[in-house]
Amino acid sequence: MTLRNTLKLGLAAVALMTAGSAVAQLRAFVGATIIDGNGGKPISNGVILIDGKKIKAVGASNRVSVPQEAERIDVAGKYIMPGIMDANVHLVPWPSWTYIEFLARYENAFESIVEEGAQIALKHGVTTVFDSMGPIDALIPVRDRINRGETPGARMYVAGDIVGFRAVFTTPESIASASKAFQKRINDRFELNGGPDLLDKNPEQVYTEMRKYAQQVDFVKIGVTGDGGPVNSEIGQGNVLRFSPEQLRAMVRAVHDEGKIIQTHTGSAESLRISLEVGFDMGQHCTMTGRTRMPDSTIQLMLKNGYFCGTQWNTISPEEEAIVRANRFTATEADNGTEGTHFSLENEVRVIKAGVPILVSTDAGTIDPDVAKDFPNGAPGGLGGSNGLIGEAEFTNMQGMRQRGMTSMQIIQAATSNIARAYKVIDQVGTLEAGKMADLLVLDADPVADIDNMRKIAMVVKEGQTVNREALPLKPVLTSLEAMNPGPIRRK
Amino acid sequence: MTLRNTLKLGLAAVALMTAGSAVAQLRAFVGATIIDGNGGKPISNGVILIDGKKIKAVGASNRVSVPQEAERIDVAGKYIMPGIMDANVHLVPWPSWTYIEFLARYENAFESIVEEGAQIALKHGVTTVFDSMGPIDALIPVRDRINRGETPGARMYVAGDIVGFRAVFTTPESIASASKAFQKRINDRFELNGGPDLLDKNPEQVYTEMRKYAQQVDFVKIGVTGDGGPVNSEIGQGNVLRFSPEQLRAMVRAVHDEGKIIQTHTGSAESLRISLEVGFDMGQHCTMTGRTRMPDSTIQLMLKNGYFCGTQWNTISPEEEAIVRANRFTATEADNGTEGTHFSLENEVRVIKAGVPILVSTDAGTIDPDVAKDFPNGAPGGLGGSNGLIGEAEFTNMQGMRQRGMTSMQIIQAATSNIARAYKVIDQVGTLEAGKMADLLVLDADPVADIDNMRKIAMVVKEGQTVNREALPLKPVLTSLEAMNPGPIRRK
Amino acid sequence: MTLRNTLKLGLAAVALMTAGSAVAQLRAFVGATIIDGNGGKPISNGVILIDGKKIKAVGASNRVSVPQEAERIDVAGKYIMPGIMDANVHLVPWPSWTYIEFLARYENAFESIVEEGAQIALKHGVTTVFDSMGPIDALIPVRDRINRGETPGARMYVAGDIVGFRAVFTTPESIASASKAFQKRINDRFELNGGPDLLDKNPEQVYTEMRKYAQQVDFVKIGVTGDGGPVNSEIGQGNVLRFSPEQLRAMVRAVHDEGKIIQTHTGSAESLRISLEVGFDMGQHCTMTGRTRMPDSTIQLMLKNGYFCGTQWNTISPEEEAIVRANRFTATEADNGTEGTHFSLENEVRVIKAGVPILVSTDAGTIDPDVAKDFPNGAPGGLGGSNGLIGEAEFTNMQGMRQRGMTSMQIIQAATSNIARAYKVIDQVGTLEAGKMADLLVLDADPVADIDNMRKIAMVVKEGQTVNREALPLKPVLTSLEAMNPGPIRRK
Amino acid sequence: MTLRNTLKLGLAAVALMTAGSAVAQLRAFVGATIIDGNGGKPISNGVILIDGKKIKAVGASNRVSVPQEAERIDVAGKYIMPGIMDANVHLVPWPSWTYIEFLARYENAFESIVEEGAQIALKHGVTTVFDSMGPIDALIPVRDRINRGETPGARMYVAGDIVGFRAVFTTPESIASASKAFQKRINDRFELNGGPDLLDKNPEQVYTEMRKYAQQVDFVKIGVTGDGGPVNSEIGQGNVLRFSPEQLRAMVRAVHDEGKIIQTHTGSAESLRISLEVGFDMGQHCTMTGRTRMPDSTIQLMLKNGYFCGTQWNTISPEEEAIVRANRFTATEADNGTEGTHFSLENEVRVIKAGVPILVSTDAGTIDPDVAKDFPNGAPGGLGGSNGLIGEAEFTNMQGMRQRGMTSMQIIQAATSNIARAYKVIDQVGTLEAGKMADLLVLDADPVADIDNMRKIAMVVKEGQTVNREALPLKPVLTSLEAMNPGPIRRK
Repeated sequence: MTLRNTLKLGLAAVALMTAGSAVAQLRAFVGATIIDGNGGKPISNGVILIDGKKIKAVGASNRVSVPQEAERIDVAGKYIMPGIMDANVHLVPWPSWTYIEFLARYENAFESIVEEGAQIALKHGVTTVFDSMGPIDALIPVRDRINRGETPGARMYVAGDIVGFRAVFTTPESIASASKAFQKRINDRFELNGGPDLLDKNPEQVYTEMRKYAQQVDFVKIGVTGDGGPVNSEIGQGNVLRFSPEQLRAMVRAVHDEGKIIQTHTGSAESLRISLEVGFDMGQHCTMTGRTRMPDSTIQLMLKNGYFCGTQWNTISPEEEAIVRANRFTATEADNGTEGTHFSLENEVRVIKAGVPILVSTDAGTIDPDVAKDFPNGAPGGLGGSNGLIGEAEFTNMQGMRQRGMTSMQIIQAATSNIARAYKVIDQVGTLEAGKMADLLVLDADPVADIDNMRKIAMVVKEGQTVNREALPLKPVLTSLEAMNPGPIRRK
Repeated sequence: MTLRNTLKLGLAAVALMTAGSAVAQLRAFVGATIIDGNGGKPISNGVILIDGKKIKAVGASNRVSVPQEAERIDVAGKYIMPGIMDANVHLVPWPSWTYIEFLARYENAFESIVEEGAQIALKHGVTTVFDSMGPIDALIPVRDRINRGETPGARMYVAGDIVGFRAVFTTPESIASASKAFQKRINDRFELNGGPDLLDKNPEQVYTEMRKYAQQVDFVKIGVTGDGGPVNSEIGQGNVLRFSPEQLRAMVRAVHDEGKIIQTHTGSAESLRISLEVGFDMGQHCTMTGRTRMPDSTIQLMLKNGYFCGTQWNTISPEEEAIVRANRFTATEADNGTEGTHFSLENEVRVIKAGVPILVSTDAGTIDPDVAKDFPNGAPGGLGGSNGLIGEAEFTNMQGMRQRGMTSMQIIQAATSNIARAYKVIDQVGTLEAGKMADLLVLDADPVADIDNMRKIAMVVKEGQTVNREALPLKPVLTSLEAMNPGPIRRK
Repeated sequence: MTLRNTLKLGLAAVALMTAGSAVAQLRAFVGATIIDGNGGKPISNGVILIDGKKIKAVGASNRVSVPQEAERIDVAGKYIMPGIMDANVHLVPWPSWTYIEFLARYENAFESIVEEGAQIALKHGVTTVFDSMGPIDALIPVRDRINRGETPGARMYVAGDIVGFRAVFTTPESIASASKAFQKRINDRFELNGGPDLLDKNPEQVYTEMRKYAQQVDFVKIGVTGDGGPVNSEIGQGNVLRFSPEQLRAMVRAVHDEGKIIQTHTGSAESLRISLEVGFDMGQHCTMTGRTRMPDSTIQLMLKNGYFCGTQWNTISPEEEAIVRANRFTATEADNGTEGTHFSLENEVRVIKAGVPILVSTDAGTIDPDVAKDFPNGAPGGLGGSNGLIGEAEFTNMQGMRQRGMTSMQIIQAATSNIARAYKVIDQVGTLEAGKMADLLVLDADPVADIDNMRKIAMVVKEGQTVNREALPLKPVLTSLEAMNPGPIRRK
Repeated sequence: MTLRNTLKLGLAAVALMTAGSAVAQLRAFVGATIIDGNGGKPISNGVILIDGKKIKAVGASNRVSVPQEAERIDVAGKYIMPGIMDANVHLVPWPSWTYIEFLARYENAFESIVEEGAQIALKHGVTTVFDSMGPIDALIPVRDRINRGETPGARMYVAGDIVGFRAVFTTPESIASASKAFQKRINDRFELNGGPDLLDKNPEQVYTEMRKYAQQVDFVKIGVTGDGGPVNSEIGQGNVLRFSPEQLRAMVRAVHDEGKIIQTHTGSAESLRISLEVGFDMGQHCTMTGRTRMPDSTIQLMLKNGYFCGTQWNTISPEEEAIVRANRFTATEADNGTEGTHFSLENEVRVIKAGVPILVSTDAGTIDPDVAKDFPNGAPGGLGGSNGLIGEAEFTNMQGMRQRGMTSMQIIQAATSNIARAYKVIDQVGTLEAGKMADLLVLDADPVADIDNMRKIAMVVKEGQTVNREALPLKPVLTSLEAMNPGPIRRK
């Protein structure tokens, strides 16, 4: 880090703290249309009264009185909704971590990268994120600093490894291109005690390991299948089960016994069904059933279990949109395609229509600028859109929801209250209601009229405080000029 | 094939047919010690009376009378046991099929190779083999020709694919080194409708597919896990489940509904347990539990279910033999070895002691002479021993059983009646009893005194007829001079 | 080979022999327009009188008298030119030989493949070919059988290896996918004593080795550079010199001392210059100078030395043709392209304009049908055109010459007399003149009017005998139904 | 860098400067045995009088008078020789740079690594090094800082790229494991305008490029051949010429016209001969002739040209030492080994006996601690010994010289005056003579009695100043605790 950067950081931090201490205890946002995240009719000319970090009252201006001592913020003509949530991010960014250069260069800077990502999210109105894969030794400290108010950033919940995965150094090429010591060190940081060794344990051992594992994290994600497309493609393991149902049941029980939620990574219809049967709470990319149409019974089970569906939906082409509108899906299992794109789209429309609760879920993070040049069209698989950039991918994801037939109000819920319910934090965040965290997104235009208006951000409020969006990220790492223009730095 | 070979084949075939037609309807082997395969005390000075293909009577010479018209064969001083069986062979030989050159050179000669293998087996006293993976379009026709007496050879039972496996062209290197058309053609021959596409099917679909599949074959083998060591080694998938228990149950039900037996390929303790719970009849390399000790409950379940264990045991070193004798296994799960060798050995001794029925089971076949040079110490994994050569590997396997503490009589049962019972063909073969096929191995020395005496073959009788061992294989392919010394053949 | 094929072959052979013996000693082709290959004005209403294998007289019908006893063939309205020659073929076809499957399947059938290729060539009017790389143990015997009249086919001249090359098994992938024994056997057949070991020899040793080498072959080709594009592409060695000038001089001297011609494989301007300076007689793909424009001095040296240029020119796009017509080549060395396409085109036009003698030269051969499916747009590099199919690629090559500005008459010379002169066989073939071999191509339309009329073949005459074109190839291998539809052949 | 390190650095720098400024202008080392590097008889009870940076007088104490004002250092019983020189180092260490992780982690720290290496060298008595391959943008600034006295370190001379080489990202595996942008950036830093693009240039262009190139560096090294063993090993290009003699001549002329010396990287007898003929001044690993014995004529040419031989000799086994003593080399060219080890050893003994001037030359540098674990037996090829660690490899190299038959005095010259002559800096360094730089190595034991006594360093003097050996390296990078124990650094 250069001196200039250090200074910038110092000054920004000072500014932040000052701003913080200057904030009034009571603040009232007055005159906006309020969309509370519960899906009901918006409140015109509303008032949101904030007491410290929390919401004290929400309602029409004729029903909520603003105390004299409150700071009064006039937001007439604006729209207020809950801060956006993202049910699936990778703040140590994937696919950057599949490049050795990224791992080596930033091995000692993962924390800074996580912090940067959480701040970019916040800058774009994303006030809460759920990190479902990454090294917890970098994620947890940043989560805690943000929670203690030592640094700004989206509120973080952390899962650590996708349990059962070897995260990195999985190809012969990467294994040949780095030292064994480095590979072990990196693999260990991603895997903790949740790596592929678990595959060999019996259910009892798995239960024991998973209780220990769950104690370290906020929620748990299991690699029910492998990754990378179906097994008869060249390298995919996406339809190969990794654990037995008994192992999975042991995991569900262990995580629930620790009072946390447990979610899936699945890549086939069969793995999805099993996940539902053994009692998972929610699933990522829940409509990815490979070359098999999702059975109706699976959708029924989702509804019965109150299963939440993370989406990872990208935008679709006009041709695909026409298929959706006409509800004319023609894929058959005999097509035998390697990617099952058409089944995915059909599945997606079906879960929406069935009323399965949908979640904004993106795989987003920052991205190494060098690596980004190799993915001009976004991350492999195109998940989450827009290169998987956090603060951008969420909007792409919502655009994809609109294209698949969701109403704006449904999408707003998918971005707020649904996620809070899925992660069992609805008592704290996800809607604009008295007693909840004052995470507000103030918009210049109506997101119900056009979901894309959510990008027209006037103000972001987190825990009652207005975010100094211009200052974020405080200390750019992957978005720094240095990372953008890497090369030898000549000392003076 | 050269003219000389053609002539040799023709003459041999003639000799065989002549010999066949000259054989008496009734034949009596008189004076030998008879070990009937049931594990009981041998019969001294015994008589085996054969009527056509079958045994008419067995007993001490003072209890079985030999009709006047019977051909009387004096075998005083000899020992007679049932023909050896091998519970697991690959007549299209593995690992040769992992070399592109083998596949290309012999693509149109798989039948001849299968026939050659079946004849080499028979020559060495192996009268029945169970082929658990290979292209059925080559295996079935040879099986039928042997059964119809059109060509000599070990009696064959055929499974086709290991269901769920991509058999060949699984590495980036091999995929890069052959045309796509050729790869597809070969993959298709091995996979039929039992390839990796099944992973994507739901249990109902799997049931339907497996009934169709089972109709084509004699028994079925399922790839419950992948192959090649644990997943945290560089390429292994040996502890990764491929199917859900529901899919496996559907398979078991489908195969049983077709009246056939179903067996496993497993590579982990968890996959073995599931296989037992869903009702598999038997398992290959049943003691391969990776980096986890086999639980006692699994052994109990084997005993309760009457599960049969294929072994694939190689010989062990003197040091390992000492460990077995002292019953001092020191491996712990913390060792975290990649191969779990010590757990295997411990598991092996434990299943023997528990009384689980053990089977001679080898992975053997012939081998491409060029490929053999790359495996001077036998097949990868060292299974079955002696380069995995059929007619040789069986004896190595039995030697390994002896080293692990089995008695000669137990080993003889493992090579005969146990296998017949496992495959539910005990009404026809596997013991020397009236009504059964007259498959006899006449030995010059006592196999009970030393199991290695089984190599001292005086005579092989299959279905009542003495095998012309010198003539086998009739038409050498992989064991031909041409294959041994390949190169351009100049036309005259 | 099926019986049907055998019969077909037998009958065809009989037909051929019969036809041969029935041919008159004296034959006169009367009435056609004669293009004698020397580039002069065609002779209208001409007569070619053949005596046995050779031409006895050529001229206008009023100047050549046809003896009474001569068989008189009326070809009024037709056009006669010398049989086409191809200065560079691979009868064991490249790129098929880069696929392990091809090598393994046909290891013992290379002779048959060579014969097939020579016959397909002849069928399409190509009466002489020069094979510049392939296993001589397969090429020489076929050459000799054709020369002895035992089988039909284009007249063959054989070089063996591209000296200094490791021909096959050069990639990590192929090395990993076949047995070491097989690799050695195949490498040895291609390399003889002309493989990469020569790189380590001093000039004196090289001279000795090359004299021995030259004795075995008809001409010699040296790998002056490696293959596969410039070295800063991923795998290329195309601009890397393999031999020192002294080694090259030793080679030139050795080959000339054996009375044979020596030619180059070059991939850079520098290697081309050196080749000219050390005295090579001719060069293949002589305009391939990589990312450097060919210097004028090099063209001057070509002219001074009487160097002949093999072309390997494919057809070009309309855009490229426009560039040629406008003579507006804009490539600069700063472009730094990896392929140097534009320099090639500019070089090509420049050597034509300078008057360097140009040769039809294609890299053609047959092609394994499976392999062909992986090259829908022809061989890698697109050399010679039309998938590099012999009997087709020659016409594509000539089409490319036309597009680059050569006249029809120049192209006809490039396909006939130039090649004969380059290979120093002009005393025997290459023109229609008394005393030369009677290799005639009788066409239905005028090739001078349109070079593509050369495809309108009425008759092919080789050494005085009319070729039974319908019967060729006598015994299809790569063009057989069996190769086209490979798979298991069920025995009856 | 942690604060603690910063402080340590600051204090050390202060200490250094203080020490520097306190040094007397005149210093006399009195009483030691002096070995002046010229190979003559040592001077007992000698005096070396230093005036500032240079030697003012050297001689027996009775012939050199010590001025009153001089600081008098009593070194009775010690031995003084010139500072050691290393004719070939890589301060950005090879083979570390073949690992992506090293390149990525230290991309911006190459300067610090170079400085560290130069300081470790100095600490061990190596006062001058010649870096023959590495990124000059990191090497030159450090060279200059050392020359200006801003930081301690061995005196550096810098060559930049091995001209013609692609230094890094040469394997398919590494190319697949990093971003294209990163690869280009790193390749560019190593290659400057001396990379593989030069292969395509004509001699005139090469001359122009090389003059520009030579202006930037202190000397030039040419990749006359590629690297990695002979071409018929799997990946080697070590016997493949990269440039034509004309290109090489242009290079020699260009570099000489810039007043610098030019040296070779060669891997075959033929490339060595050419290098001698075109006028190279010296060669690295000059005895590496692959599978061909070095001709006598080549040795004669070395002597005639005054060619200097860099060695890269490792220690040899007792068996090899016995072969040397018996002068019984049995290798023949028919052996056809891939490494030519025996020819190397024979060549080595022959050049020593012939009197070719030999140089200590090691390929040494520091090494990434992670990478080092993958090379427990030293760098690939085992060059220079002891993992190629600078300050250690030089002694191993000298040990190897002793084993091959060189006397201690010859070895001392190989480590001092020979190198100075080879690089044409003998007027400044390499011997202890009046007017030369006062680079002294004071030893506790006699290096003539046992060359290994050179490790018993009492004092290192560079340019008249006693080196504070304990303080070096000032700022450890690859030898830091952080590099030794890498992992996440938690911020306070």
